[in-house]
Amino acid sequence: MAVITILGAGYMGSALTFPADDNGHDVRLWGTWLDNDLISAVQEGKEHPRLQTHLPAGVRTYYSNGLAEALAGADLVINAVTSEGIVPVMQHAFPYMPAGALFASVSKGFWVGPGGNVHRLSRMVTPLAPTDDFRYLHIAGPSKALELCRRVPTAVHYACEDLARAERVAALMRTSYYQIYPTSDLAGCEACSALKNAYAIAIGLFDGLEKAGRISQSYNTKSVAFAKAVREMALVVEALGGQADTAYGLPGVGDLLVTAMAGRNRTFGEMLAQGQMSAAQVVAYMSEQGQLTEGYPAIRTGWYLVNQLANRGALRLESFRLLRALYEIVYENAPVWPMLRDLRWVD
Amino acid sequence: MAVITILGAGYMGSALTFPADDNGHDVRLWGTWLDNDLISAVQEGKEHPRLQTHLPAGVRTYYSNGLAEALAGADLVINAVTSEGIVPVMQHAFPYMPAGALFASVSKGFWVGPGGNVHRLSRMVTPLAPTDDFRYLHIAGPSKALELCRRVPTAVHYACEDLARAERVAALMRTSYYQIYPTSDLAGCEACSALKNAYAIAIGLFDGLEKAGRISQSYNTKSVAFAKAVREMALVVEALGGQADTAYGLPGVGDLLVTAMAGRNRTFGEMLAQGQMSAAQVVAYMSEQGQLTEGYPAIRTGWYLVNQLANRGALRLESFRLLRALYEIVYENAPVWPMLRDLRWVD
Repeated sequence: MAVITILGAGYMGSALTFPADDNGHDVRLWGTWLDNDLISAVQEGKEHPRLQTHLPAGVRTYYSNGLAEALAGADLVINAVTSEGIVPVMQHAFPYMPAGALFASVSKGFWVGPGGNVHRLSRMVTPLAPTDDFRYLHIAGPSKALELCRRVPTAVHYACEDLARAERVAALMRTSYYQIYPTSDLAGCEACSALKNAYAIAIGLFDGLEKAGRISQSYNTKSVAFAKAVREMALVVEALGGQADTAYGLPGVGDLLVTAMAGRNRTFGEMLAQGQMSAAQVVAYMSEQGQLTEGYPAIRTGWYLVNQLANRGALRLESFRLLRALYEIVYENAPVWPMLRDLRWVD
Repeated sequence: MAVITILGAGYMGSALTFPADDNGHDVRLWGTWLDNDLISAVQEGKEHPRLQTHLPAGVRTYYSNGLAEALAGADLVINAVTSEGIVPVMQHAFPYMPAGALFASVSKGFWVGPGGNVHRLSRMVTPLAPTDDFRYLHIAGPSKALELCRRVPTAVHYACEDLARAERVAALMRTSYYQIYPTSDLAGCEACSALKNAYAIAIGLFDGLEKAGRISQSYNTKSVAFAKAVREMALVVEALGGQADTAYGLPGVGDLLVTAMAGRNRTFGEMLAQGQMSAAQVVAYMSEQGQLTEGYPAIRTGWYLVNQLANRGALRLESFRLLRALYEIVYENAPVWPMLRDLRWVD
């Protein structure tokens, strides 16, 4: 039995209490200053407001001021706050993390530095660690929290440059319904996790156009966009030194599919394509409903990243016709259908 | 202007008359002995019964006894009959094909020889050609006929070992809405076209289980199956000497998506998973409705093929857990959900 502390009490942090508890661990769920209502509900014996189910009875919950207590004696710390929250939260958490504690993160996104440079989250978090022994592990793959907490069979990669450590963390978390495959391709997994949110918006755009009657059923075109998204992710992965197979597997193809079928990013695209609101208005509207659309910033950071990589000669900007189209649609008000209609397959 | 003769007046053969006619060619559509009602309808000025739209006015149609006339002076012959029909139809057609005529085919499937060996269609058809100059070209990629005939933007590969010839055929057929990318990976494109029909059934099985209330929403698991299908296709492509990128692009990822979203093979899986009928009964029922499920035989031929390739040491049979599960579900009455639930990602 291990002590597992999960930071962030939203969808995925809370869903991860299920496999952790099923494995008999001492599971602690800490809420950020934004999660007070979630923690209150659970402490009052109600269903978790996002997951709409009760957390396992053994899970102990902590308000944001209980960080030290939540982390005391932790064997494994899992970060489950947003990509914008991970740096401030880990700055707070590191001083209380026991030496030698394992670490994993489900945050999906990039970090934009002050100079506009785009960084992988692992590159931002690792230097904040007080010890050289810290190794960042990223969880990637198709994993909707609402299904994981219902024990729907799920398969993910645990990605850490230290493969043996990935196996150690996996051994704590895997269950019959939560398959975990360790990999050393941290760069590839981080890139896919961030970019699939951006590309899922493309699929939502098609569905929005169809629903609004602006185009007829266009599975042919949508499939080209889906395949192009996968190819573009693979090119970024390779430019970052990762393995293209990561994009062609669970973190790329698999996670893009689940996000495109059912995620909030898809909803964002759908609403945008109906033509009633600007991208900023859709974001504002969805935020009011408590729906975060990570794909919206990911389109911008993804586009900045490929520009950076192109400047370094690591890839060719012309290969990213879909990402460019998404950027122009979402940030420059380019017309949706002409951009998608004219998408070319060529790399 | 060229003379383009299309053999087979079903969905795709008839849909291809649109780009061919839009390019100003002399377009001829020949119906097999099974297509009499389709040809009659068109000759009577009605909509094409399958496409539910009128063919372009310039298209000339021929009954099965008009094969010689249909092929006289043809510059390009496009085979659009089923994978079971291609050998007998081409045996009839070759004697009338002008020397030097180009050839393309949209048939998707494998051919099972008398000894049970599985062959690519190109390997069966090429030896039947009267001249050494014959080169098989296969059209692969996400292309629903009902959308192509409405000029929905579509992108496909024209695959021929002679790339220059693929470019010549592409130049005759491409339009603003029908993008064509020539490739020399004939083996990879043929394998994906056949196998995606088999794997699309897996996605249908999930949807059938959900619709019948036998499982709750399981996007996580479905996404693993989708990604696994893509990976297994890539392994077959490589074992046949093709390029894995073909499976990771339009013929694999793209065509699997369109088939999984909306094809007859998906419908087959959906009906089977609802548990009211055996696989053979579903096939019989769908045949009565004029719906051919190419995925049903493709599961068997695909499974035979990977066994053959494994015997030769070209791949490892253990890598094909999804195809094996499909084979056992469809041909050996294995229970659907346990097979899919227990699917492992590992190659």
